[in-house]
Amino acid sequence: MYSSTVKKLLAIPGPIELSPNVQNALALPTLSHVSPEFVKIFQESLDMTREVVQTGSSSIPFILAGSGTFGWDQVGANLVETGDRVLVLSTGYFGDGFKDCLQTYGAEVDILKSALGGTVPISEVEKALRKATETGTGRPYKLVTITHVDTSTGVLSDAQAIAACAQRISPGTLVVLDAVCSLASEDIQMDAWGLDVVLSASQKGLGGPPGLSILVASQRTINVLEERIKRGIKSGSYYSSWEKWLPIMRAYDQNKPAYFGTPAVNLVRAYHASLREITQGPISLSTRLAMHTAASDLVKRTAESLGMTQVAREPKGRAHGMTALYVPDIPGVPLAAADVLAQVGKRNIVMAGGWIGHMGWSVVGEEGRDIRTILKVLEESVKDAIAIKKSALNISARL
Amino acid sequence: MYSSTVKKLLAIPGPIELSPNVQNALALPTLSHVSPEFVKIFQESLDMTREVVQTGSSSIPFILAGSGTFGWDQVGANLVETGDRVLVLSTGYFGDGFKDCLQTYGAEVDILKSALGGTVPISEVEKALRKATETGTGRPYKLVTITHVDTSTGVLSDAQAIAACAQRISPGTLVVLDAVCSLASEDIQMDAWGLDVVLSASQKGLGGPPGLSILVASQRTINVLEERIKRGIKSGSYYSSWEKWLPIMRAYDQNKPAYFGTPAVNLVRAYHASLREITQGPISLSTRLAMHTAASDLVKRTAESLGMTQVAREPKGRAHGMTALYVPDIPGVPLAAADVLAQVGKRNIVMAGGWIGHMGWSVVGEEGRDIRTILKVLEESVKDAIAIKKSALNISARL
Repeated sequence: MYSSTVKKLLAIPGPIELSPNVQNALALPTLSHVSPEFVKIFQESLDMTREVVQTGSSSIPFILAGSGTFGWDQVGANLVETGDRVLVLSTGYFGDGFKDCLQTYGAEVDILKSALGGTVPISEVEKALRKATETGTGRPYKLVTITHVDTSTGVLSDAQAIAACAQRISPGTLVVLDAVCSLASEDIQMDAWGLDVVLSASQKGLGGPPGLSILVASQRTINVLEERIKRGIKSGSYYSSWEKWLPIMRAYDQNKPAYFGTPAVNLVRAYHASLREITQGPISLSTRLAMHTAASDLVKRTAESLGMTQVAREPKGRAHGMTALYVPDIPGVPLAAADVLAQVGKRNIVMAGGWIGHMGWSVVGEEGRDIRTILKVLEESVKDAIAIKKSALNISARL
Repeated sequence: MYSSTVKKLLAIPGPIELSPNVQNALALPTLSHVSPEFVKIFQESLDMTREVVQTGSSSIPFILAGSGTFGWDQVGANLVETGDRVLVLSTGYFGDGFKDCLQTYGAEVDILKSALGGTVPISEVEKALRKATETGTGRPYKLVTITHVDTSTGVLSDAQAIAACAQRISPGTLVVLDAVCSLASEDIQMDAWGLDVVLSASQKGLGGPPGLSILVASQRTINVLEERIKRGIKSGSYYSSWEKWLPIMRAYDQNKPAYFGTPAVNLVRAYHASLREITQGPISLSTRLAMHTAASDLVKRTAESLGMTQVAREPKGRAHGMTALYVPDIPGVPLAAADVLAQVGKRNIVMAGGWIGHMGWSVVGEEGRDIRTILKVLEESVKDAIAIKKSALNISARL
């Protein structure tokens, strides 16, 4: 009943194209969530998730049914107690959303917002952290949150520098990285950089179908949790409760099944297939990241050559898995994003607004065929949209 | 890389076997969550979900990424305010879990627990409701919760009678039905019975892969929510917040995309395919339910003939989509569930503990071939397990 549908290339910043292996894994019959076969898949997925965020076995990944938003919820419900201070660094819509989430759990949030398309200057982060740690002026932040790549702007934040700054000035503060739009398309060194939480979702750089929240908590984060549990303070949410989920993840880690909610077995299997490609495929993780940089450069240069400017203004503050673009600003030709998208839509490819995704299979698969298609479509669509607009202007000028 | 795996028949009470149509839909490439094609699939899924719970267009379904447990969370986070009284009817593990969830959000819970394998007598429900409404003795319950079928015991509760009782004695109390293990395998008439919330999950009678929480809220429930929002009281959880999700569901209902978290598009597509079979396939919903009753009778009679007794003791209090069984109690032959499961495991079929699932495709597909397989395997396994145990006892008696 769906067979008549033409396959359209997904060129949005998530969900992304599935690789053939991932697609095949998704197509397999459902396994019992307590079968030895599935338990092994889950255990391996935990280990490979650690590998992708570059952390050791003392960190605990949580692979749970939910969207990326659910990762924020886990952070808020488990790490925030009423009145805890949190510093949120925002480079767009998703930073603001994270703030909203943390406030639900009683956080007193200070937010540092970048100018549109910019990053938050590290000097401002330093100032805020310092002020909070000075005696008499406040209490240190329990958490600092960073949106690694904000999908709304395509801005890339320097997670390493921010984490180093926090460790220097406010070593007790947990560093939380929202890596939904960056994990496996940007370098993330959880242990080396001293990140305490890395949260992501299955459907972007990680290359799976949407529906899994992927989060890794450091040993230090688990210590904070366990100290809280000892004090008898429950998680703010039931479904997000690490007090409930931690024993489940630990059981799977030891190849044993355990139950709090039924895992999304088909999605986990597809995610597992993608993790295998990322960690054990012919392309190493570091090569994969380099390929994302190369593809990103190509997209950005092509867009520039078409007269499009990027929302992300700082060359070092630009994501490598996506690009947010303004339509060409041509004097006398008032082009809208919809004009370009109308042309894109004729070409069996899906873009959304001014956002182009270039992550995962579209970058590493089939010698970058998808990227070439995306660039070709972008070029044709922008040129056609301009031509159509000019022609319409000429006609109305003659009337 | 998975191709060597032999397909094993799932005979557990969820996740269940996928129909070929559902499997095919799951295997399709990922759609953009904001594409017109996906929006239409979502909109139709909302409508068909209403049809399965037998409710009108004023009820709002929530189709969200998460496990069945997440449905409890939505109820707790959105309908409970600190100090609200709730009456929980428990017939097993899942009733107790629901209580735990509601307490997270500040509910003062009274729990009526059935005896093991029994239902909660309606007279006790009546007494509790009456006591709470009497002036001077308490406050009426904000909610009463019913686990329609508790998977741990296979007990079926009389949702219609309990709802009628609540409406008679405590008309302001919202009636919440946990239908995770009953929707589309038991009759549920949301409007006719006056249910205010029906919550379920994708992977049982609804016939999809696991990973979607399915919940339908009545107009009366939405009124309670909106009154709460007016008073400025936020949902207790961020990811569960209906204040956030309601506009999204309403947008999809009007064939428009909206964003709070990325929907699990591949799962929604598979769920949609299953809903089509349930609501528009050659087998009507009422015939489907009758087929579940017939299959259930067959399983239960066969089990009895093998000397197995059911955990659910009351003939009218037994689920039609699953059966929870004790191994045969043969004097001098101390049989354990593991002995039977060891035999089951040799036969490419997956059962778990004493629970047999008989829902969805295994009941309605291929003229009940799966049910015949399940019965054959059960019969052989029990007989073999007994023979092996007896033989081992004879040997050790001879030693």
